Order: sequence, then structure tokens, then C-alpha cells
Amino acid sequence: MNLCVVGTLAYDSIETPFGRADDALGGSASYIATAASYFVQPVGIVGVVGGDFAPEALEFLRSKGVDTTGVEIKPDGKTFRWAGRYHFDLNNRDTLDTQLNVLAEFDPVIPDPMRDARFVCLGNIDPSLQLKVLDQMRKPEFIVCDTMNFWIEGTPEKLREVLTRVDCLIINDSEARLLTGEANLVKSARMIMEMGPHILIIKKGEHGALLFLGDDIFSAPAYPLESIFDPTGAGDTFAGGFIGYLARAGEVNAETLRRAVINGSAMASFCVERFSLDALKDLTHAQIGERLTAFRRLSHYEFEEVPLGDTAS
Amino acid sequence: MNLCVVGTLAYDSIETPFGRADDALGGSASYIATAASYFVQPVGIVGVVGGDFAPEALEFLRSKGVDTTGVEIKPDGKTFRWAGRYHFDLNNRDTLDTQLNVLAEFDPVIPDPMRDARFVCLGNIDPSLQLKVLDQMRKPEFIVCDTMNFWIEGTPEKLREVLTRVDCLIINDSEARLLTGEANLVKSARMIMEMGPHILIIKKGEHGALLFLGDDIFSAPAYPLESIFDPTGAGDTFAGGFIGYLARAGEVNAETLRRAVINGSAMASFCVERFSLDALKDLTHAQIGERLTAFRRLSHYEFEEVPLGDTAS
Repeated sequence: MNLCVVGTLAYDSIETPFGRADDALGGSASYIATAASYFVQPVGIVGVVGGDFAPEALEFLRSKGVDTTGVEIKPDGKTFRWAGRYHFDLNNRDTLDTQLNVLAEFDPVIPDPMRDARFVCLGNIDPSLQLKVLDQMRKPEFIVCDTMNFWIEGTPEKLREVLTRVDCLIINDSEARLLTGEANLVKSARMIMEMGPHILIIKKGEHGALLFLGDDIFSAPAYPLESIFDPTGAGDTFAGGFIGYLARAGEVNAETLRRAVINGSAMASFCVERFSLDALKDLTHAQIGERLTAFRRLSHYEFEEVPLGDTAS
Repeated sequence: MNLCVVGTLAYDSIETPFGRADDALGGSASYIATAASYFVQPVGIVGVVGGDFAPEALEFLRSKGVDTTGVEIKPDGKTFRWAGRYHFDLNNRDTLDTQLNVLAEFDPVIPDPMRDARFVCLGNIDPSLQLKVLDQMRKPEFIVCDTMNFWIEGTPEKLREVLTRVDCLIINDSEARLLTGEANLVKSARMIMEMGPHILIIKKGEHGALLFLGDDIFSAPAYPLESIFDPTGAGDTFAGGFIGYLARAGEVNAETLRRAVINGSAMASFCVERFSLDALKDLTHAQIGERLTAFRRLSHYEFEEVPLGDTAS
């Protein structure tokens, strides 16, 4: 197996200015694996759910080429639940309720075939669990990790340990500033890369994303959407498209990383157009191709070698 | 004369976390004309100053190829002055003092040769004055206009009249939202273009700029600067590089507009590296060329026609 994804499987209850969804399939691993499945199959997924988790949800994941043998089902437990409400501008949200349930005692066990995965994606989850996963991988070539403010503030030592063991961290701009205490993103990025990851992606929501690789910086635009329906899972979907693209490409270099960021951004632009995972359920490769063409148009211009005609002055 | 710039000439007193400058040369017309002069010469400039305006400042502008015959000198008056203090993150500033002085009774008179300019840049100034300028132009082919929240809130009718008469508006994201009452930038852009300009540029500071031309959208990155010394004049410098590039290119189309935005962004990236106009005083075309190459690297990636190998599914 080429790609192994670890994270949460959840039921989300979401309110946006445009409507609400109750007990919708969510969780970092669900979004990441589904997005990645458009690039590479099978995608191994590791997580935990309760007896209340609908068999149809696992069946859906399998229909996308996701190997769910790493999903532990605790018949007597309840699935992790999150409830949130987005503000009018969709840039901020309030968490209304968090029920860890089976996640509270999750002890991830990676099925044997998945331990050979070359690409590993650690979705947003307790850094201690991310470490337990890494301990089980035999020969990972590229490890990408997501996190959030809750772990940056709550378990900083464990998170720092994770950072020494991953190749790439994906966080958003406010999390980067929180992690380093530095407002300038370029300085903040350098500080984070000194903590371990040699590749860093800083997501900026409607302003796109920055990719740092050594001194090289790539600025990816966000797709200008006239209506964003539900931002939930956009970051996880980005991560899924990103790692999925790399796993498909089979090699990680300055060029594949740039294209991976664009592919992740394209997948995320679909995600926010509908509630929950709905927009990711039946995408076609042709639709993704069209969106990638639109992304190309968004940032492309013809470069002039000597725009001012006089480089000597 | 190919390009005529109208706006303020000012003395700025600026405090940033990194230092302060008193009575430094500023004003929208100064920044715009200086930036544009790297692309096209002569640049006609129209404005007003008092008897306190140093002859050396006008001499500086002339040394850059700026035609200052349109700068009215009121010997008994005082030059427009602005004082401001930037917050620690440089994204916000407080205006400490504004002295309109000679600007209060400015009645712009365009020297006869400048009335034939094909390209006109209306810097940030009272919309009533922008209209008086337009009335004097004989055959403008491309008119770009800047404004600010002060005029959006203070003289909305006059501003709306200006918008019906210009080809391109340049504003920042918060001003776009203020002008339309719409938080979504894509929707807001459409509403603004229905007010008149068929081209719109929305500046987003450290997040770059968006160019709207009909349904076509171009997303330009901002140069990731590790230290921003003084943001004053960055927007004007952007406008100067933008209009200067177009005036040099001689034609306005989807491709030249995109490159003009990049060239404006490159000039603005120099501006903020030093106080006042200092960074724009002795740039070389080679330096600008290097910055444009860095911009290219910032957003470029190799596009794959069929990334997923299967467009039929």
C-alpha cells in the first residue's frame, strides 16, 4: 500500500448561514482519504468509530478505493462528534460541542500491509497518537502532518516531538503565528522548519497557500468562489489532494510539491461548495481536470525575460 | 505625452515599529509618477504644493523623467501634510494628523500637452477633483483610478460619478467591501464593475492582488518579505508600476493587464523595504528584472494537461 492516512472519523453537526447538517460524515481521516482516493488507490485509513457508525459510511469509503481494515469499531462506544456554527463571513466558527467518545481511548494499530506505506498522512489528532503511528511504520519515505491550535496550546512538547519526525507540516496562518509567536509569516515559516519539517505549507483560506521548501517559496492562489457553502473539512481535503497527488507522482521534489499544492487547493475548492463530504462523493476526473485548468488560468501570465528592454541601466 | 498622473504631493511623518521619518516626500502622485518613470518617460504630473515644498523634491522628480510643469506652486500656502503611526503588525495604522493646506482649494489645471495623454492615472484625491481632471482630457484611452474609504464614505455620489467614467478601479479589499456592503470579494467585484469600470483590481496587502476583467480573474501573489519597513505608498507604487507598464506596452488586453499587475506588485515590494520614497529613488532596471524573476518563481508551476491520466471517468 502506497498511502496510509490516520485521523478521525466523526459525525459533524454544522450550521452555516446557508443551512445545517446533522450527524454528517466528517473527521480528518474521512476527508483526507476521500480526497486522496481520486489520485491513488487503495488508500489505507486508520481510525476508530463506535457501534453507532453507519455501515454505509464505511461502505462509501470502500467504494472510493479506501481500505478500511484499519478502522477499529468499538461496538459499545460512540463515534467522535463535533458540532460547530460558522459566522456570517464563514471565516470564523464557534465550536458548540465536542464529544470525544471512542477517540478518548484510541490506541491506533496499523494493519500489517499498511506499515509498508511509502507515504503517510497524519491527520489532525492528538500528537501522542501521531507518534504511536510513526512508531509502527517500517519505511515511510514521506510523512505529512496536520495539527491545530488545540494541540499547539495543549500538548506543545508532544507536538514538537512529532515535528522532529515528519517531512512536511500543514497548518494555517494563525496556527503558524501561534506556534512561533512571530507575526511575519516568512520568519514564522523559517522558525517552524528549524523545528523539524523541511517542507511547510501555510494555508491562508481565501488567500491561498504558501509552500516553503528550503529558501524556495511557492504562492498558490485560492479558487475565487462566489458562494462558500460549508468550509468544514476544506483543510483536510487540501491535505488529501496534496498527499494523494504526491503518492501518485511517486516522487517528492520542488516541481511535484508545487503541483501537489495546486491539486490540494483544487480538491478543497470542491469541498466547500456543499455540506460535509457531499461534493467529494461523486467527482469525476474530468471535473477535477477542469478545475485545474481554471487554477492554471488564475495565476498564469507570460513571463518576459527583459520587460524593460534595458537591463544595463 | 503618454501618461498623465494626478494626485497629491505631500510631506509625510511616519512612525513604524522600526523607526520614524519626519517631513518625508510623499503623496499619491509622487509615488505613482516615480514608480511609473521606470517604465515610461516623460510622466506628466499634476498637483499642488506650498511655498514650503523643497525645490530639491521637484528636481528629484524631474531627474526621474517626470514632467512637473503641472505642479502648481502656491508660494503663500503650505504643502499637504499627513502623519501616521503603524501598529506592530503593520497591517493597521492610525492617522495622527492631516493638514490639507493648499490641497483644500486645489483646482487642477492640466498643461496643454498633457491633455493629449493616452493613459491617465487618477491618484487618491477628492473625486470632485478627479472629475475636473477628466473634463480636461481630450482623448484618454485608458483611465485608472484609485480612491479610499474617506471618499467612499464622505462623497459617495461624486465617487460613483467617477466610476462611470473610468476603465479601471484600484482599491483594497476592505474598501471593496465598504463600497458594496458585500463580504464575498467575487460578488463585491461584480457589483463594482456594474458601477462602471470594466477592469477592477482588489489589493489584499500581504496576500497579493486580484485582477477582474469581465469573468476572467487573475490572482497575483505578494512578494513574501521578511521585513517590511514602511508600508506607506505601497498602493500608490503598485498603481504607478501598473499604469507605467501599460503605457509602455501601449495596449491594454488580458495579457498586458496580468503582467502590469505583476510589475506593479514588484514595484510595491521595493517600496516597503525602506522609508518614504527612498527605495524608489535609485532602482536599476536590472534590480526590477531580478524581482520580476523572483515573482515568476513564486507562482510558476508546470501545468499537466491530464494530471489524473483518465479524463473519461
